[in-house]
Amino acid sequence: MIKTLQQINTVAEMREHIQTARMQGKRIGIVPTMGYLHEGHLSLVRAAREKCDVVVMSIFVNPLQFGPNEDFDRYPRDLERDRALADQAGVDVLFTPDVSEMYPRKILTNISVSNVTNPLCGRSRPGHFDGVATVVMKLFQIVQPDYAFFGQKDAQQVAVVTQMVQDLNVPVQIVPCPIIREADGLAMSSRNVYLTPEERAQALVLSHSLSLAEKWLREGVTIEEVRGRVIDIISEKPLAAIEYVEILSYPELEPLEQAVSGTTLILALAVRFGKTRLIDNWIGTI
Amino acid sequence: MIKTLQQINTVAEMREHIQTARMQGKRIGIVPTMGYLHEGHLSLVRAAREKCDVVVMSIFVNPLQFGPNEDFDRYPRDLERDRALADQAGVDVLFTPDVSEMYPRKILTNISVSNVTNPLCGRSRPGHFDGVATVVMKLFQIVQPDYAFFGQKDAQQVAVVTQMVQDLNVPVQIVPCPIIREADGLAMSSRNVYLTPEERAQALVLSHSLSLAEKWLREGVTIEEVRGRVIDIISEKPLAAIEYVEILSYPELEPLEQAVSGTTLILALAVRFGKTRLIDNWIGTI
Repeated sequence: MIKTLQQINTVAEMREHIQTARMQGKRIGIVPTMGYLHEGHLSLVRAAREKCDVVVMSIFVNPLQFGPNEDFDRYPRDLERDRALADQAGVDVLFTPDVSEMYPRKILTNISVSNVTNPLCGRSRPGHFDGVATVVMKLFQIVQPDYAFFGQKDAQQVAVVTQMVQDLNVPVQIVPCPIIREADGLAMSSRNVYLTPEERAQALVLSHSLSLAEKWLREGVTIEEVRGRVIDIISEKPLAAIEYVEILSYPELEPLEQAVSGTTLILALAVRFGKTRLIDNWIGTI
Repeated sequence: MIKTLQQINTVAEMREHIQTARMQGKRIGIVPTMGYLHEGHLSLVRAAREKCDVVVMSIFVNPLQFGPNEDFDRYPRDLERDRALADQAGVDVLFTPDVSEMYPRKILTNISVSNVTNPLCGRSRPGHFDGVATVVMKLFQIVQPDYAFFGQKDAQQVAVVTQMVQDLNVPVQIVPCPIIREADGLAMSSRNVYLTPEERAQALVLSHSLSLAEKWLREGVTIEEVRGRVIDIISEKPLAAIEYVEILSYPELEPLEQAVSGTTLILALAVRFGKTRLIDNWIGTI
């Protein structure tokens, strides 16, 4: 029997479909995405395939998590290509609601998570994580998954969603999955298509500096010194404009005086190359 | 077979119990309460009994929805009595978590609903409805009910919870139930036990003025005139201190210039008698 990918556009149909699967005792996994799929998303599907009987991928470019001057309108979209990739990777159901299906009227309810949203992208993108938390909660209520798969490239997003799920007793297990990189080290991102060849070449400094930083941290170089060196390396690239370079505890995302042995930390960075904002991070225990 | 009320104190046990019921295809109803049950709560249980196979009542005095100078500590509690009443009324499962079970660590996630929380109790009790929305969401995630039953005495609470459930696609149907009154008209409330006999007697002015107001509104008296008359009547009682008397659209809770025929509105009031804050309302279509 050839099983084909089923595409569902409405909340009502999605609920109905999942209700049937649930009554059959199936384990349901969701891979929430904004589409324009790359190997990072597909690695989430493979992780979901291993744990779940039914793998739902949502594709929804969520206006709520974009700031007024951000790239909501030009965010890359290619549903035909996404559908083929999702099908090959083993997605069972592709949930592709449009904006009016997800927000049929002005949404008055907001979910906000404090503390973990204070630094990093939470600081530079006000309201972003409220938008993320709110749409992820909606997807969880619609699909009612047992597992949800998120990439660690968006490490702060993982921290926010994990905190929300714990705080609100949402019956879903969050499964963080490793960053997937191009052969030359660039972290995969739908936004990489924005980069000019020159920007693309200079952006390699991000993964390169993270590798060096890991080495230095393991050698016992102080956090402030490592942070300073990473800033210096990135600043040498003429097209790079640093938004932040931070070393924090993980997953609490709190400042660290000095990491003692056994501390789990994140070195997270956001850097603009031209109009394109890239993020990358390294999480590890030193 | 005599079916006895089952009491559950932990989230894990509650989930397990409901999982079994759900796999058997049973319809689950929740009656969220803060305990110290009265006929109003029991009417919700009876409504739940009609629609559902499994009726869960939660009893949890939620610190998150009390302000710093409110009556969290002295809020009346009597679990033995509540258990007997719940059993008689037909509750299957009494969910009685303690504060550390519901908030095992500092909660960082907040749910807020705008617009409908602006007037009335939302204005006089800042943060109250965030606390309500957040705990109700937690209960919905723990119990995963098909139906949830709320009394219309807390009309703004019904509006907030209904809005939240719509906005976040929570798969639960909110069932508002009519206000239950004492024989002399006083709306039932766990807080009525606070009243001295003198306060209790004067508090009858609330239901009395609502009855008059309904009559006047149906006769075509203007909203501002009706509001003024209600304020005058209540103010005649020496122990009454008005917090608000408002006539708004329902369920939007927006100001009304003048109600045209067919408008559904709420006349809502909050009045203190001594240390006791009472609320009451009339909702109707004129």
